Amino acid sequence: MSIAQRVHNFAAGPAVLPLPVLEEIQRDLIALPGVGMSILEISHRSKPFESILEQAEADIRALASIPSSYRVLFLQGGASTQFSMVPMNLLTPGATADYVDTGSWAGKAMKEAKKVGAVNVAATTKDDGYARIPAQAELKLTPGAAYVHITSNNTIEGTEWKSLPDVGAAPLVNDTSSDMFSRPIDVAKHALIYAGAQKNMGPAGLTVVIIRDDMLARSQPALPTMLNYAVHAENKSLYNTPPVFAIYALGLVMKWLRAAGGLAAIAKVNERKAAKLYAEIDRTGFYRGTARKDSRSLMNVTFRLATEELEKQFVKESTSAGLDGLKGHRAVGGMRASIYNAFPEEGVDALVAFMREFERTRG
Amino acid sequence: MSIAQRVHNFAAGPAVLPLPVLEEIQRDLIALPGVGMSILEISHRSKPFESILEQAEADIRALASIPSSYRVLFLQGGASTQFSMVPMNLLTPGATADYVDTGSWAGKAMKEAKKVGAVNVAATTKDDGYARIPAQAELKLTPGAAYVHITSNNTIEGTEWKSLPDVGAAPLVNDTSSDMFSRPIDVAKHALIYAGAQKNMGPAGLTVVIIRDDMLARSQPALPTMLNYAVHAENKSLYNTPPVFAIYALGLVMKWLRAAGGLAAIAKVNERKAAKLYAEIDRTGFYRGTARKDSRSLMNVTFRLATEELEKQFVKESTSAGLDGLKGHRAVGGMRASIYNAFPEEGVDALVAFMREFERTRG
Repeated sequence: MSIAQRVHNFAAGPAVLPLPVLEEIQRDLIALPGVGMSILEISHRSKPFESILEQAEADIRALASIPSSYRVLFLQGGASTQFSMVPMNLLTPGATADYVDTGSWAGKAMKEAKKVGAVNVAATTKDDGYARIPAQAELKLTPGAAYVHITSNNTIEGTEWKSLPDVGAAPLVNDTSSDMFSRPIDVAKHALIYAGAQKNMGPAGLTVVIIRDDMLARSQPALPTMLNYAVHAENKSLYNTPPVFAIYALGLVMKWLRAAGGLAAIAKVNERKAAKLYAEIDRTGFYRGTARKDSRSLMNVTFRLATEELEKQFVKESTSAGLDGLKGHRAVGGMRASIYNAFPEEGVDALVAFMREFERTRG
Repeated sequence: MSIAQRVHNFAAGPAVLPLPVLEEIQRDLIALPGVGMSILEISHRSKPFESILEQAEADIRALASIPSSYRVLFLQGGASTQFSMVPMNLLTPGATADYVDTGSWAGKAMKEAKKVGAVNVAATTKDDGYARIPAQAELKLTPGAAYVHITSNNTIEGTEWKSLPDVGAAPLVNDTSSDMFSRPIDVAKHALIYAGAQKNMGPAGLTVVIIRDDMLARSQPALPTMLNYAVHAENKSLYNTPPVFAIYALGLVMKWLRAAGGLAAIAKVNERKAAKLYAEIDRTGFYRGTARKDSRSLMNVTFRLATEELEKQFVKESTSAGLDGLKGHRAVGGMRASIYNAFPEEGVDALVAFMREFERTRG
């Protein structure tokens, strides 16, 4: 199948990857240059893979200007595993963890924390259908909290924190799965950042964790070894066999991102792409954005039509037109256009044109 | 890089994959036929991926004649995560788990189980340097044990169970990471089988678990959700985003294995490959096999030379000759030739020729 036959992939994740990355993976798939075996066959203890791992970490560090007091870990199990690892490692006995409830994924994170210890819901926008991010004044933080957990981008609801909350001296833990590296991130304001790779960073099957050194002291030896941050940090993500291929692919995406100008440059592109879509949504009232304007995500653009019947037609016809994956999450309905870093601007233009034509014929 | 430039990869895992599988992955890497996007970008909730997942499971079931009372799960985190999941799910309060200590990995499995509950070392061959598998008469099993855990092939020590132990009515749990699907396996004699994929089944980043239905009732809701077998079974391995690419690649390996005649056919090839190597090891005494003859692994052939100096030369010169990865595990030294399903017989012939020539010039 040729490149010309690729569709526009608006899926929420796993999601579109940069074409040059796919082409490099394809070119070297049978044997890495100078190595004589495929990346799919290479030992995680080999020199070539050591270089790949080190380079991926170096590029991540450079992209986000990560201070030397932070470790970068490559883990498995997705954000869902982090929902348990965070409290199992950081929620010290007798302490309380603050969670900000901004949607489905934040809720799942809280649910796992409650299995481990005391949880305070510092704020929730449930009564507003999770259509917005809470204001600073709404946060009821626990003095001396073990940590404060937020979800920087809410993939299902289409909302995104525009700036980090002020949590005082409490360690800030941030699930950035769906907007990691889509814009600059102030790592130094965090104690722990985690993200499943499969939206902005690479293929599914890899989780990136950035953790401040002092947090590692909280990991107790009684934990399951594979859920212990300190073990993974000490072994530089090689305690056991890591997902070799996914780390390699993520490394290529990071290289691509650096060549594209880094986080500030990609943020400009992402803002422009999202602005085009939201402008079309707001143009006449035929489409209705579901997130409040001050909370709109640059990654997941959610909108509805007047009736579910019309929405079904929209999904069906857009799919036929080569615009794939626009159906909203089954939990909320409607439409969702996920436009991560690698999603091409011409795909956004194609969707805008389709939306306009759909409105013209049905409006 | 052309196929001709591929080396012979004796690595213990991640390990060599069938060349036709690599070629198919390469061909379709930019866009799966009829789908219009790469397997690296495809949603795990999409119809095409559903088919891939179902086909992979169907092929696994067909290869091992898995009874319908067993579930096949695709998980992450490797055998190391199973070391914790097994006791966290199956070691019921007040009960004891029996472990057979046959080497490094069995020891790691035990260590994690001890964090969860009572462990009985049913047998150990530590005093023999783990050079053998214990006999049935050596097993001191606990009446009413929660389960009995064995490690069917010991990757580091080069030993392998030739037949399953008789554990009576106790559920048998088997870590088959390094010989899964290298020979027929009697699933019905097990309660749970697990294997990291990266030796015989596919790339790193995927773990296959085969679990008998009745075991699922032991999984308690208080467990971290991602470590709960019942949750993964109920959600057909789609509770969260699975390692999509690794499942796809495993599916292709399973298809290749079925086309190669299945487990009985591949076992014959594996026996022949191993026999050639062991015959060379035993030929004059210049090489010394480290596993006892009745316990020798068909997957990992371990041997030593008279001095460490000679071993260093062997590794250096064999690597130069395109025979890669023959250095033994750092914990035991010596040499190790891992010759999994996909390792070509001509690679074994090349190693035998190299060994003979090395002996001729140094012996």
